[in-house]
Amino acid sequence: MSKTQINESAVATSVEESTGIGFLTLDQPQRRNPLSAQTMSEVTAGLRELSADPRVRIVVVRAEGSVFSAGHDLTEMIGRTLDDERAIFDGCTEMMETVQQIAQPVIAAVQGPAIAAGCQLAASCDLVVAASNAVFGTPGVKIGLFCSTPMVALSRAVGRKRSMQMLLTGQTIDAETAADWGLVNFVVDPADLDREVRDLAAKITTASPLTVRIGKQAFYQQIDLPQAQAYEAMAETMATNAVTCDAQEGMQAFVDKRVPQWQNK
Amino acid sequence: MSKTQINESAVATSVEESTGIGFLTLDQPQRRNPLSAQTMSEVTAGLRELSADPRVRIVVVRAEGSVFSAGHDLTEMIGRTLDDERAIFDGCTEMMETVQQIAQPVIAAVQGPAIAAGCQLAASCDLVVAASNAVFGTPGVKIGLFCSTPMVALSRAVGRKRSMQMLLTGQTIDAETAADWGLVNFVVDPADLDREVRDLAAKITTASPLTVRIGKQAFYQQIDLPQAQAYEAMAETMATNAVTCDAQEGMQAFVDKRVPQWQNK
Amino acid sequence: MSKTQINESAVATSVEESTGIGFLTLDQPQRRNPLSAQTMSEVTAGLRELSADPRVRIVVVRAEGSVFSAGHDLTEMIGRTLDDERAIFDGCTEMMETVQQIAQPVIAAVQGPAIAAGCQLAASCDLVVAASNAVFGTPGVKIGLFCSTPMVALSRAVGRKRSMQMLLTGQTIDAETAADWGLVNFVVDPADLDREVRDLAAKITTASPLTVRIGKQAFYQQIDLPQAQAYEAMAETMATNAVTCDAQEGMQAFVDKRVPQWQNK
Repeated sequence: MSKTQINESAVATSVEESTGIGFLTLDQPQRRNPLSAQTMSEVTAGLRELSADPRVRIVVVRAEGSVFSAGHDLTEMIGRTLDDERAIFDGCTEMMETVQQIAQPVIAAVQGPAIAAGCQLAASCDLVVAASNAVFGTPGVKIGLFCSTPMVALSRAVGRKRSMQMLLTGQTIDAETAADWGLVNFVVDPADLDREVRDLAAKITTASPLTVRIGKQAFYQQIDLPQAQAYEAMAETMATNAVTCDAQEGMQAFVDKRVPQWQNK
Repeated sequence: MSKTQINESAVATSVEESTGIGFLTLDQPQRRNPLSAQTMSEVTAGLRELSADPRVRIVVVRAEGSVFSAGHDLTEMIGRTLDDERAIFDGCTEMMETVQQIAQPVIAAVQGPAIAAGCQLAASCDLVVAASNAVFGTPGVKIGLFCSTPMVALSRAVGRKRSMQMLLTGQTIDAETAADWGLVNFVVDPADLDREVRDLAAKITTASPLTVRIGKQAFYQQIDLPQAQAYEAMAETMATNAVTCDAQEGMQAFVDKRVPQWQNK
Repeated sequence: MSKTQINESAVATSVEESTGIGFLTLDQPQRRNPLSAQTMSEVTAGLRELSADPRVRIVVVRAEGSVFSAGHDLTEMIGRTLDDERAIFDGCTEMMETVQQIAQPVIAAVQGPAIAAGCQLAASCDLVVAASNAVFGTPGVKIGLFCSTPMVALSRAVGRKRSMQMLLTGQTIDAETAADWGLVNFVVDPADLDREVRDLAAKITTASPLTVRIGKQAFYQQIDLPQAQAYEAMAETMATNAVTCDAQEGMQAFVDKRVPQWQNK
């Protein structure tokens, strides 16, 4: 495993060549992994760095300590100008969108509380594995700052009534409820979180990286479109996917009942 | 408690100063609380009246008797012109949209059947608490009048297959199913409905009214937008929220570990 | 029962006059009911033929054998030009859209695996009844061809995280999970599948065909619209529905506590 620390960073990135996993780790456990403007900028840069690494087939966003992330760093949001605040939330949105824009799937590995922008970060990942002690919440309403940007990811994951409940009451939901509501894919024993995330990653990294890249990009391209427009776009995506070497190889291997050999093109 | 009756109305409104709850009560229990054109107009007016009252921090829509609402008053829809029918459904839509347009959150307290436009009214509220004896249905298909306007709220709450099932079969679902499908937030014992609604309201009325208003408006602004547009709008909403007095006070109080003092500005 | 076989077809259609059910049956069980370009064209034609038959009140899409459908016929997608692939996926999309465009509701009766385009076909039906041995999956990622068109129907039925999980891992979900996620309406014993589908159909065919037609068309017209636009369209739909003979008869019959007599106009 190679490991790169971005100077005195709140974020650590590392690439595990044997598994193809790029890890992005929130690394300020004593501070409950706050998402300061600087940290969010580092997450965005870290995701792009991992995405550009040809060894990385999948990205895992995780956190050190007993808290996934407590959300924004409030201390830097007090006594600031409107333009300062804008810069913070623009940087936050850029981070969230980067999770979905990079080519590789991103799995969130969540232990403990994922709060406000921390909840949003988990909700923005393509897949979420939660330890049974994870909790999710958008409590900004309690401190005068409604979780309006976390709401974008949350309401698209759990629907109207349930997101309204979390947003208006500020109360957290536990991991099982989050799974029941479609925010979390798998709930696992805290001791098994790392292993379960790796098992899930391994199910995806056996696929052609090209195919996965096409699919992830296509997912977000179509999800907000009216159905007829989505079909128009996806029929073309699927036709162009079908003539790639990997699709031709994959289909032939399936017919021949053998393991495909991906060329990633 | 002050209590205002709008003349010989089918709807009663009242404001409970101690809790900040504005109650809007459907008050024709012997007739199963039908939503006649006149009643819907009174609901719309009642919601606006409550919303304009500075004492009202949250609105509860409830009904007298054993039925929440049986839906439209069919007797007034027989033998009418197309323009008459248009006026009825335009008034109905105005009522449903007003629920979501007023500044305060609206909780539906549902006991017994909530049918057709009655189901739609519940589905249009920000939050729904249902007694365990509540049932929800859109049976217009059975009387030749498909529940096309209730469908708008219903399909956005429970998704495609489940709303199609309710709309095409006309069969009701019970409160537990409604909760499982995301139409209802909480199912409670019928004897506890009033208390549970008040408990839920109290969790929200501790927040800054300004913050709640910003959040509710933002929710409906973003929910139907493509994600990138939603983020653009919400980043600005959150930045402008952050520089309000209440957000500054809320964040400082959180850092200081004290209870915030809201100024509602 | 009259029965029409479209020449040497992979698809059988039949009309059961006593129940008003038009059956469209995938009829290549030994080949696992593959959706070749030819078969998809036959399904589209069969749906239109059934829809045009005045005896048909509801359509059931079902399959012979132990597999609902294994999806596209891969053998015809190997070594083809981009235009060939485009023709296949355009034909596939036309089939899926036809399911939702015909006037009558379409129920999928799913036993065994419904895979890739087979999963999409089920997800495109208005209602889905699944035998408990049904499984649903979008495993294209494993053969280099991401299930980008199935994704359109799947992601709109089960939401973001769950569709991503199915699409990225390629793993199937069982019938109970599909029901929990909103892809399937009812899970039944395999031995009861035919009877349960008929029972469900009978609940819908008692309604006015005109009303059902108005409702189905309205459903897909509004589902992807922003709410305000959906309400504008549906208020007009409901007003024009209300002045039809069948709505007037249905409302009057309800008031009179008698069974309505539909004229289908």
